[in-house]
Amino acid sequence: MTQSQPCKDLAAARAKTTFPVIELTRYVHGSDEKIAKRRHLASLVANDPVLKNEGRLGLSRVEDVKQGLEMSLRLYQLKEEHNLTQEEFLMCSDFVDELLPTTLHETAFIPIIHAQGTDEQAAYWGPLAEKHQIIGCYAQTELGHGSNLSQLETTATLNRDTDQWIIHSTTFTASKWWIGGLGAVATHALIQARIIIDGKDYGAHGFIVPIRSLVDHRPFPGVTLGDIGPKSYGGFSKIDNGFARFDRYAIPRENMLMRFAKVTRDGQYVKPPHSKLAYGSMVLLRSHMVRGAAMALARATTIATRYATVRRQFHVPTSRKDAVNPALETQVINYPMVQSRLFPMIAQVYALFAAGTKMRSMYESMLSELMAGDVRSLAEVHAISSGLKSTCSTIAATGIEDCRKLMGGHGYSYFSGISRIWSTYVPSNTYEGDNFLLTQQSARYLLKQVKVAATAPENLTSFSKYIVRTIDQDAFQAERCSVQQASDWLDADVQLAAFEHRAGRLVGELALAAMQEDVLWSDLNLECWRLCHAHSQYVLAKSAVEGVSNAKTQDYSQESVMVLKRLSDLFALHTIQASLGDYLEDFFLSPKQCQLLRQQIKTLQGSLADDAVSLVDAFDFSDHYLNSALGSADGDAYQHLWDAAQKEAINQTAVVDGYKEFIVPILNQHGPAKL
Amino acid sequence: MTQSQPCKDLAAARAKTTFPVIELTRYVHGSDEKIAKRRHLASLVANDPVLKNEGRLGLSRVEDVKQGLEMSLRLYQLKEEHNLTQEEFLMCSDFVDELLPTTLHETAFIPIIHAQGTDEQAAYWGPLAEKHQIIGCYAQTELGHGSNLSQLETTATLNRDTDQWIIHSTTFTASKWWIGGLGAVATHALIQARIIIDGKDYGAHGFIVPIRSLVDHRPFPGVTLGDIGPKSYGGFSKIDNGFARFDRYAIPRENMLMRFAKVTRDGQYVKPPHSKLAYGSMVLLRSHMVRGAAMALARATTIATRYATVRRQFHVPTSRKDAVNPALETQVINYPMVQSRLFPMIAQVYALFAAGTKMRSMYESMLSELMAGDVRSLAEVHAISSGLKSTCSTIAATGIEDCRKLMGGHGYSYFSGISRIWSTYVPSNTYEGDNFLLTQQSARYLLKQVKVAATAPENLTSFSKYIVRTIDQDAFQAERCSVQQASDWLDADVQLAAFEHRAGRLVGELALAAMQEDVLWSDLNLECWRLCHAHSQYVLAKSAVEGVSNAKTQDYSQESVMVLKRLSDLFALHTIQASLGDYLEDFFLSPKQCQLLRQQIKTLQGSLADDAVSLVDAFDFSDHYLNSALGSADGDAYQHLWDAAQKEAINQTAVVDGYKEFIVPILNQHGPAKL
Repeated sequence: MTQSQPCKDLAAARAKTTFPVIELTRYVHGSDEKIAKRRHLASLVANDPVLKNEGRLGLSRVEDVKQGLEMSLRLYQLKEEHNLTQEEFLMCSDFVDELLPTTLHETAFIPIIHAQGTDEQAAYWGPLAEKHQIIGCYAQTELGHGSNLSQLETTATLNRDTDQWIIHSTTFTASKWWIGGLGAVATHALIQARIIIDGKDYGAHGFIVPIRSLVDHRPFPGVTLGDIGPKSYGGFSKIDNGFARFDRYAIPRENMLMRFAKVTRDGQYVKPPHSKLAYGSMVLLRSHMVRGAAMALARATTIATRYATVRRQFHVPTSRKDAVNPALETQVINYPMVQSRLFPMIAQVYALFAAGTKMRSMYESMLSELMAGDVRSLAEVHAISSGLKSTCSTIAATGIEDCRKLMGGHGYSYFSGISRIWSTYVPSNTYEGDNFLLTQQSARYLLKQVKVAATAPENLTSFSKYIVRTIDQDAFQAERCSVQQASDWLDADVQLAAFEHRAGRLVGELALAAMQEDVLWSDLNLECWRLCHAHSQYVLAKSAVEGVSNAKTQDYSQESVMVLKRLSDLFALHTIQASLGDYLEDFFLSPKQCQLLRQQIKTLQGSLADDAVSLVDAFDFSDHYLNSALGSADGDAYQHLWDAAQKEAINQTAVVDGYKEFIVPILNQHGPAKL
Repeated sequence: MTQSQPCKDLAAARAKTTFPVIELTRYVHGSDEKIAKRRHLASLVANDPVLKNEGRLGLSRVEDVKQGLEMSLRLYQLKEEHNLTQEEFLMCSDFVDELLPTTLHETAFIPIIHAQGTDEQAAYWGPLAEKHQIIGCYAQTELGHGSNLSQLETTATLNRDTDQWIIHSTTFTASKWWIGGLGAVATHALIQARIIIDGKDYGAHGFIVPIRSLVDHRPFPGVTLGDIGPKSYGGFSKIDNGFARFDRYAIPRENMLMRFAKVTRDGQYVKPPHSKLAYGSMVLLRSHMVRGAAMALARATTIATRYATVRRQFHVPTSRKDAVNPALETQVINYPMVQSRLFPMIAQVYALFAAGTKMRSMYESMLSELMAGDVRSLAEVHAISSGLKSTCSTIAATGIEDCRKLMGGHGYSYFSGISRIWSTYVPSNTYEGDNFLLTQQSARYLLKQVKVAATAPENLTSFSKYIVRTIDQDAFQAERCSVQQASDWLDADVQLAAFEHRAGRLVGELALAAMQEDVLWSDLNLECWRLCHAHSQYVLAKSAVEGVSNAKTQDYSQESVMVLKRLSDLFALHTIQASLGDYLEDFFLSPKQCQLLRQQIKTLQGSLADDAVSLVDAFDFSDHYLNSALGSADGDAYQHLWDAAQKEAINQTAVVDGYKEFIVPILNQHGPAKL
């Protein structure tokens, strides 16, 4: 059989690759062992009759949740059949690529029992949960309250006589809301409620609350449960996000998780020894989200890059050398406009992966310091992870949808595969700290570093050392970018100096504004937002630069180092270009340097053209996981689109359901046609 | 019954309004008669048992399309019962707010028959279609080809012997694809196919092709039909976008639409008398899309503004005057950060409405000139409508999703109402000319105006007169913004001068680049894109300024004029701020002026705070049309969210479907719990 033109085009693109693809796969996923394990588990899922991609679409909401349950069960069976470790099991769940009714049981309920329960509690509840003899969910958010713990309205009032907590939704808006797994499935909820003892309020704490009978699955009296309804954009379709209202519902005192704070039999509240330890898990979660952003955007760029390679539109020359082939239109990926939209996103993915790796190692060294009682790095790691969560998840959500738009009309087909990535990814801009609110955390930290810079500059870390330059304001304001010709922009020090200068100026301005009399913090939110993103972009650029150095140290081939360097450069320059005003405003950049910047970006984009397909191949996604007619590894986009449509439920009958009831009456409303 | 706090909050916000709301409703929708008619038709739909909002959700794909058909039929019945004109009928269809299987029959098939058919053809096909005794669709796009007419692969080959066209899908990628109504419903397709006569190719023309039997609705032999499957983000869910392949399928020669080109009985191809007349309908469509962008973003800002008014988060002071109420958290809309995200979008809506009105009047005067044989304004109106289509639909798509993000976690509930607006709106960034490609049309036109400026400046129109200033490059480069204090930014001439200078600089740079030897047009696409948006933003700003003047002339109250002026100012200044680099790069703006700009924007935002709710109330959307739990007119957001969830299908049974098959085995995989 002759190969189709799209398949030929993709193969031809791969043939031009300048670097060993496996090296960049290692850069992204780690050792060869890890890569092999990923591939093995991905294929387990892809070949499983329940977990493969077919039959997931076009279901009613009730059927969707039912199918989610079927997948949950199948995953547990797979775990047993293949004797998977918990880590392997979670990787398989990732490859299924659906939030399932049991997802939060595994990723929140179980870990929080271990983190916040005493050893005895963990020994009791842990195995029950790990053998999913009970199914849990994590219930913090309320109808009237996002994740602002301090304003939760659910109460747990101690009844000393019965040694019980009385869980109560004090108002209508106190209803727990949005809780994954609560709507129809969970038997237990780990709820956050404010402790009230003798009328005194001790704030929110965690409790394990049995909510549905293990006998018949019905809610217990005093507990009202339900599903909150569909989510936006078709996202989260197989999971039962739910609500719960409690009407003076009693649970044993021992169901409070007591690793930190405790309440004794005689009703005494014992404060936790450290107050900041809880930050650790927040930092971990946000660090994970940096890598999560990279993975999500990596999938979208894989699809968009492959499709842009096989898609041909218009007979327009894109190179002075090549004659136009009159029989074939131009490959879309050859248009500079497409390159200028797509390639910076590929560069972003690599920068995000680098930052994810960096974040992980910062977290790990912080953790070992914490174990030794040293809390000094906590503030910075918390600030950076908050800032990166905001910046990276914004980059990814925007980028995924930009990938779809880049794919023209077919991008809007569900079969493009982008829709399911974006619709499930985009709420990450809101959860775990709203991306706008979070920027205040990072800005507050940087403001404090201004004081450190003035008083004890030796305490500044590598990510905030630049702030010391702002102390001598005359010298700082005289700083200028050193670029004289386009290629000077390829100097990593030049790039980082630009990011540092900009963030330094913004932190200085914020410090000045914050000192003004009568100023309210809320008046400065916009300034915090600007500063936070400026600093996070700096962290990203610096991580990308470090990634290149590490690749050198780890004996990557020269070709791989070179392509990583190009990506790091493109990330930095494209990011600077996107906020050019910030660099021009205090004359740090000259108009001439802006022109050189644009020129160098075009050159970089051109230099990545031959490697684009292999750069996304290196992310190593299976066709199953991509689940995209347009982005499959063989490139046969139109054939896959056609095939996918043929399986559509509507096409299984010769005449559409509703013909007699509705089409016939429409055609005949004014009598039949006389043709 | 006591009013809930959210209801009180929204009522209190309305009580602060400074202007007569009905005047801005007139500004948006026209005369009081038009407003009354809109309200009447909206209530017809809202109160109809089939067309009301209930029961639309959570259906399977087959059920969705079936319900679409039910709605189609009901709309036709409504037309007859209430003796609606076609215009009123189309307005009712808009209020139903679903693309239905018959939508394109009404908005494309019928109008194109009249536009491209001869009088005889219109007299034959018109009534059949208008009485929907046949149901049509418009089939242009192909699997391998977007709307690039010049590359379509479907052919219509003349068979002189039988006096027939042989319609044929010459390749796999020639399949018609994406065609609304084709998947399951249409009996006729108006297809675009290339005429081949005696082996000679005359390019694409329109044909009426019977595709499904009027007897049993089955496809005719030689025609393969089907549905292309679901679309992204849950959009277009009730319409059957479809595909068609033709295998040497014969239709009568007379089924070619022959108002312009003709083919005679003896096989002679007769060219159309004018080649540019077809542009007219494209311009009209794009003009409509400017208003469409305004309407879509207006709905989203209505929802977001109302919800931000009733939503309270954190006890944070936002005003130096007010004491914080310890019992009530702060209304989200009072945060400057929220104002800086939301209010510019409201200002954009008003600017888009102004541009829509302007576009409509430009189109109408162009049309009467065309009738008189004068084609001079065609090029400009085409360029401006292309540019505005790109800029405005980008603004709206981005803004709608920004509104959702502004609403925190609940924004991601389907019941926020944003999802359905965005998922159906966002493909407009791709169809009717991809927003990136379109910018070339506008840029090409402006490039030509540079020549006009040099040779016959008296021919420049009011939207391109500024280009004449670029001819004297020394004087142009010496231009500087005149702002000395923040309030100077409120001078409309100052604002427009800034937009003009920026667009002027970009068109000058593009002209220079285009003159370089060996340059390819495709190398300049990015420059075209920048220029097009710069020019379109200028057109928007100028239209908004004109809108304020018109309001004055039309005896609006001083208060309404004042608030329109603030909106126009905010639109202009926010838009300048978003591309500050462009204004700084050639020193047109100074750093000090940038600071004053930010300061003036903050002041403007503050000055709109008391009017925000009434500014969106003025759009005059019914609760039915908004279809949002969080944005309803009474403000009772949490109650509506609760109520909507209770109706959810999953909540209609005590135990979820799938309990026995899946939950029980999960719970018992390792034996039952021993609690």
